[in-house]
Amino acid sequence: MTTTFQAPPGTRDFFPEQMALRRYIEDTWRQVSLRHGFLEVDGPTFEFLDLYKVKSGDEIVSQLFHFESRADKEGRADEFALRPEFTPTLARMIAAKANALPRPIKWFSIPRCYRAERPQKGRLREFIQWNVDMLGGETPEARRQFDLEVAALCLDCLREFGLGNNEVRLLWNDRQLVEELFKLAGVPAERYGFAFYLLDRVAKLNAEQRAALYVENGITDREREFFNQLAAGRHPLASGFWDALGPAGGQAVAEFQAYSQRVSACQQTVESTLGLMGFPGYAQYDASIVRGLAYYTGFVWEISDVRRENRALAGGGRYDRLIEMFGGPSLPATGFGMGDVVLANLLEECGKLPKDLARGPAPQVFIVNALSTPDAALNLLGSLRTAKIAAGTSYKTTKNIGKLLQEASASGAKWAVILAPAEWERGVVKLKNLATREEKEIPVGEVATAVRAVQ
Amino acid sequence: MTTTFQAPPGTRDFFPEQMALRRYIEDTWRQVSLRHGFLEVDGPTFEFLDLYKVKSGDEIVSQLFHFESRADKEGRADEFALRPEFTPTLARMIAAKANALPRPIKWFSIPRCYRAERPQKGRLREFIQWNVDMLGGETPEARRQFDLEVAALCLDCLREFGLGNNEVRLLWNDRQLVEELFKLAGVPAERYGFAFYLLDRVAKLNAEQRAALYVENGITDREREFFNQLAAGRHPLASGFWDALGPAGGQAVAEFQAYSQRVSACQQTVESTLGLMGFPGYAQYDASIVRGLAYYTGFVWEISDVRRENRALAGGGRYDRLIEMFGGPSLPATGFGMGDVVLANLLEECGKLPKDLARGPAPQVFIVNALSTPDAALNLLGSLRTAKIAAGTSYKTTKNIGKLLQEASASGAKWAVILAPAEWERGVVKLKNLATREEKEIPVGEVATAVRAVQ
Repeated sequence: MTTTFQAPPGTRDFFPEQMALRRYIEDTWRQVSLRHGFLEVDGPTFEFLDLYKVKSGDEIVSQLFHFESRADKEGRADEFALRPEFTPTLARMIAAKANALPRPIKWFSIPRCYRAERPQKGRLREFIQWNVDMLGGETPEARRQFDLEVAALCLDCLREFGLGNNEVRLLWNDRQLVEELFKLAGVPAERYGFAFYLLDRVAKLNAEQRAALYVENGITDREREFFNQLAAGRHPLASGFWDALGPAGGQAVAEFQAYSQRVSACQQTVESTLGLMGFPGYAQYDASIVRGLAYYTGFVWEISDVRRENRALAGGGRYDRLIEMFGGPSLPATGFGMGDVVLANLLEECGKLPKDLARGPAPQVFIVNALSTPDAALNLLGSLRTAKIAAGTSYKTTKNIGKLLQEASASGAKWAVILAPAEWERGVVKLKNLATREEKEIPVGEVATAVRAVQ
Repeated sequence: MTTTFQAPPGTRDFFPEQMALRRYIEDTWRQVSLRHGFLEVDGPTFEFLDLYKVKSGDEIVSQLFHFESRADKEGRADEFALRPEFTPTLARMIAAKANALPRPIKWFSIPRCYRAERPQKGRLREFIQWNVDMLGGETPEARRQFDLEVAALCLDCLREFGLGNNEVRLLWNDRQLVEELFKLAGVPAERYGFAFYLLDRVAKLNAEQRAALYVENGITDREREFFNQLAAGRHPLASGFWDALGPAGGQAVAEFQAYSQRVSACQQTVESTLGLMGFPGYAQYDASIVRGLAYYTGFVWEISDVRRENRALAGGGRYDRLIEMFGGPSLPATGFGMGDVVLANLLEECGKLPKDLARGPAPQVFIVNALSTPDAALNLLGSLRTAKIAAGTSYKTTKNIGKLLQEASASGAKWAVILAPAEWERGVVKLKNLATREEKEIPVGEVATAVRAVQ
């Protein structure tokens, strides 16, 4: 019973102060998405368990919270799982209606997602994730533009939060360039899938763990050297990177040159397009970025803080074959996700959280009632709120106008309406500007109109 | 595999059109709550399973989706359940911080909630519920005022949706009045708890089911007659109600008069206060309303459509002992919940849904690019969006200005900015009002400023 009255570990209680921060984050995500022409969607919080096996296989099950429906008369039950991410739901929804949806499809969502793992810093069991996806694009140029349109949305939103190119970078790569890199390093084509996995893992492991992983998977010396250099942050276009990998023959040199040219061309497009769209100085090519998920097929990227001290703030890329896996048509797609936990931590570290979140929105008008009954105050409160004016009053029983005005000021209201016996007998109330202390008399029935006029 | 690519039965996919309706409902709930001075809160989507047993006992478990955490090294796992309602979370949060929170506590929340039962019309497995609660109140008068303040918030919100007293009624009762009624009907005090349960059930059962329930629970003939009359909608203050219950002695008559007077006094307060607050003609005393949940202690109410054809739109009441049950201090409380499913059905039936939800928000500006490269358009798009102006453009490759202007109009944008070679050479673009067809030339660098000026 000791745990009954606590939130489960890895979940959060949102008291008004924490909720105000969550609303600020969600509202910013939403407003910027709409400004860029994306439409909001959502799906169920839980799906059939099998949906998550489509792209991740059976091993995903241990990472999910899963449960059964009540059994029917024949004793059969359905197996469900809390969504760990939004992409399978998105793919299912797109596949179901692909031909009825105008192209390109520009969708965003702000789902709560779940992980069954033990909570760690920046990784909770329940978190909120902004998802943005753009589907369609008939030419490679259109698809690259879509890649960068969603990345620009991400950067615009971060700038709205106060995080510019002094605080964050967009680290990018392209899985097709990575395959060329694997070829240069002598990785056989049938091991590319595994090499993507390895490249994503090695940078996160210490030397001992890495060595164990290499032994376990029969990695050659040449491959080890290659992965170790990338894990150490060395750039494959930098001089010296290939020296230790052994002498390159004539063909390897030609291949290296072709690779360098493709990297440069891609770099040129990414940097100049993002620059044109208002984000110069953000993009940084990083050969070690591949993103863990197997379904990425092209451009991949993540947002890192400039000091690279925190987890990635957002990550995404192109996934051109996923919609087909979910029973839909062949439909190129690109998108990203951003979680609320890492974002909130970085905003706090950088001193970018708005100062006035804690108190909640102030009323526009505070009613000070010094009459002997609450009736007139209740009536005025009702008429102001019905006129869509946020109005409050004291719940204390005092009739001391001075004390009530203190409470009015503390509430953050701009105006006080004072109901006092002397004026009330003449059918008027006082409207007081709480900042300037100016006041004027208003007929009782005209308070809402007067407040609208002075707003 | 046939079910893999469908949403689980009783859950919903929110495509842009359905999501726009959900946002409209949630935003209205939120705005009206804030206008009435309530602060938003939320909790985890799942809680320790035991939390739900506190007020509902073990029998609640079969109504919940529940699951386990991954086992720790000793093989121990935690049991969690998806929240069926928000009240236990609210009670837990209040109990944890009761002494640090300014009184009265005025909170609202808009959680997604879950039921393990098979889906039915108006009852899904996953739904969204607006919760409003007000805690505190040192006198009976203050507590009654709080009861009516939350009810007025509910009615104000319904009016905002277009549902006034031609469409809905607030049916109310008070559990203390109901206890007097039980006494008049000869129900022994130790059976009041069961009688509340029975009164809530009988109106929903047919004659046969009701008879079985009476037999099963050893209900006396006099009690049966009493419950049957209430279930038939007869009013206990109407003449004839008590005739069939057998001759009343002198004490019963006196008790009946006292009961009638208390009902009248209560009715007077409820109707006049709600009238003062702007809601005359809504409140209707209904002796059969008790609300099913055992934790209500006083005022109870629900919102019904005037024809009583649908499920209750909202329901709530006073629950003065609940916070203590969750380990907190003694703290009087009153509140209500409203689900999105019944509300949306009624709005549709009454023709009160906004007409323009389906399309989503239109851009303010649509860029028509007839230049040979996308660069200038991308640059303009970026600068408008960065200036917080919602901007869109065509993803088609045509340079036909007529066709592009058709697309601009179809997007719902008010303004088009036309990039055409002749003007571009002179450093200007055309800004066109898509409604009036008027257009004027603007220097390239001043588009955002010009759009702001004409908004």
